[in-house]
Amino acid sequence: MKIFVLNCGSSSLKYKLYDIADETVLADGKVERIGQDDATVTHQSIDKEKVKRTMPILEHTVAIQECLKLLVDKEHGIINSASEIDAVGHRVVHGGESFSDSVLITSQTKRVLTSIIDLAPLHNPANLAGIRAAEKLMPGTPQVAVFDTAFHSTMPKHAYLYAIPYVLYQRHKVRRYGFHGTSHKYIADRTAALMGKDLSSLKIISCHLGNGASLAAIDGGRSIDTSMGFTPLEGLVMGTRSGDIDPGALPYIMEKEDLTMADLSSMLNKHSGIYGLSGVSDMRDIENGIAAGNALHITAFDVYEYRIRKYIGSYAAAMNGVDAIVFTAGVGENTISLREKICENLTFLGITFDHEANRKMGKEVELSTPESRVRVFVVPTDEEVIIARDTAKIVN
Amino acid sequence: MKIFVLNCGSSSLKYKLYDIADETVLADGKVERIGQDDATVTHQSIDKEKVKRTMPILEHTVAIQECLKLLVDKEHGIINSASEIDAVGHRVVHGGESFSDSVLITSQTKRVLTSIIDLAPLHNPANLAGIRAAEKLMPGTPQVAVFDTAFHSTMPKHAYLYAIPYVLYQRHKVRRYGFHGTSHKYIADRTAALMGKDLSSLKIISCHLGNGASLAAIDGGRSIDTSMGFTPLEGLVMGTRSGDIDPGALPYIMEKEDLTMADLSSMLNKHSGIYGLSGVSDMRDIENGIAAGNALHITAFDVYEYRIRKYIGSYAAAMNGVDAIVFTAGVGENTISLREKICENLTFLGITFDHEANRKMGKEVELSTPESRVRVFVVPTDEEVIIARDTAKIVN
Repeated sequence: MKIFVLNCGSSSLKYKLYDIADETVLADGKVERIGQDDATVTHQSIDKEKVKRTMPILEHTVAIQECLKLLVDKEHGIINSASEIDAVGHRVVHGGESFSDSVLITSQTKRVLTSIIDLAPLHNPANLAGIRAAEKLMPGTPQVAVFDTAFHSTMPKHAYLYAIPYVLYQRHKVRRYGFHGTSHKYIADRTAALMGKDLSSLKIISCHLGNGASLAAIDGGRSIDTSMGFTPLEGLVMGTRSGDIDPGALPYIMEKEDLTMADLSSMLNKHSGIYGLSGVSDMRDIENGIAAGNALHITAFDVYEYRIRKYIGSYAAAMNGVDAIVFTAGVGENTISLREKICENLTFLGITFDHEANRKMGKEVELSTPESRVRVFVVPTDEEVIIARDTAKIVN
Repeated sequence: MKIFVLNCGSSSLKYKLYDIADETVLADGKVERIGQDDATVTHQSIDKEKVKRTMPILEHTVAIQECLKLLVDKEHGIINSASEIDAVGHRVVHGGESFSDSVLITSQTKRVLTSIIDLAPLHNPANLAGIRAAEKLMPGTPQVAVFDTAFHSTMPKHAYLYAIPYVLYQRHKVRRYGFHGTSHKYIADRTAALMGKDLSSLKIISCHLGNGASLAAIDGGRSIDTSMGFTPLEGLVMGTRSGDIDPGALPYIMEKEDLTMADLSSMLNKHSGIYGLSGVSDMRDIENGIAAGNALHITAFDVYEYRIRKYIGSYAAAMNGVDAIVFTAGVGENTISLREKICENLTFLGITFDHEANRKMGKEVELSTPESRVRVFVVPTDEEVIIARDTAKIVN
């Protein structure tokens, strides 16, 4: 069974073709700068040469068509016809309260998705465009939506409600949703497997630290809290996003800097975080800056680390304990000094840290020693395989 | 030595007269509805009858004058002349970065206070009005300012910086300041005394839960983090304040409800918190509602408790451990069910809770059993005595 996994952003998309039998990635690729004359398509099939093409691609249908062309290409392809694709799995950012699990896409699904477009105005329109394009190009092929929010739909009310007038929840569904759900779910599953324990018996704190970043408290396999909220702005310090900030500071900043609400939102999303504090947004640049003694880079790292550590403590309190802490995504998988600083300052939880293991890169590694009361892991995340699995499960 | 402690709000003031030798409160009282025709003055001297008068009081000088009249009153007073007052200690809400300790008020002090009025536009003007009025009425009597922010001036940079453009800190001093400092300081001192240990060796989490509420992480006697931020809006759920909320939710709420930034601020400060979720702001009403099975009251309590518990966990992580957790102020001193729920869900920290002790009211009580790894206390707070002590120390 072949599953085409599609992740559409507003000006880019990524795809992977899976053979679900053994979860082999038969091909993967991406399209960048959709909407421009110099869009690029990058594609590679298994055991074949990587190919990169530049061309005008003005919208998602053409972008997906180019991907399908390469998949069936004599030289670069891996299948003979697009009809070999059994199903398409779409990553959809926001499912609101309507979707607590992955679903087969029907006209009803699309109606609901359209009705909640306001909840993720930057993401859901592109996801919908991808769905419509794939339906047009592969009529009759089942399409499945896998939501970034769905894994967190198990959060209890005391975790998802903000302390604002209740009518704002009733009327406009203002509440915590959380994101990165497929990643946190993958991490939970892998962690239980690595520990050789039943997921239902474990309290796991999953730290997804990419350019966007969120933590999840996963109790018995169910997300009971997560640091992103109504939007992906809340919580941790990120590459360019502020994460948590005193809401009372916002009118002061707007007045002092003569900003509109739109300006402020843009500042908090695009010019804050690690970048706002230091002028660079990439953790590798921060590490280089620290090595060179750059004071602002040191500060940015400290603020970033401290926020993660505090969230780990708060989620241990949320679950009344923690069995495993897991680092994943770009920064989580690759930043040795960050994992070290976090864990060395959490010895009160009973963590004994293995500095040797912490230096291994690029695979699943346990960072705690055998006597550690809390186990610590690095687990490279794989959101696409969860989308492929969910898609296959729903289609079968 | 007699110290007059004054806490001026915009439309009310509270005062206490101390004999600092043994910290006796010789008299205390308050003026309410300053600015109106029917202002009330309530006053009681030690061992004398309580007196309450209604009269027009249009501004702070008259209000303080009425207090002084009662202090020297033949029937209700306790001193013969205002000249017996050796010094006046003023509570000042916001000291910005300029004041890291209590100070003698000079013309320079007032200039600096005036320059930072923007940081606390609701509070500092009233504090300044109180200072000017007391100077006018008691010329030559030393005046001391004791700041709500000062105790938190020891916070490290990684705790006080928000992850927003650094220039906002440099240019406008946007950062975490924290409040309730005199209360947290008092709690830290009393906790060390109750434990019979040196404060410098202790990690304490102080939970000031009044109508406003904040937690402080106090490591070795120094505040290293606190939940209120640039303003007293951040952090815990409060009577009518939201505390933490996704900043990304704010433009959505403004658009959906057609609110200005001023409307939104008002909503977050005055119509949110426990009140926003349940329709009542007093914890006693919430407890009654829970007893009657009111679902919204149960939810509001759960959201309130959960936020406190998560902050306790995060501060344990901030200090890499905790020796004592202390509850204080109205809600903290009086809400048995709240303390129980928090502590019963923190057994992973090694807390063993004493349910019997938890039912004692109105005094310093230990709530943990002898085998508890973390000790838990109720300590009634006393901000005024700290103001009196600091004032005496500075004047001497």
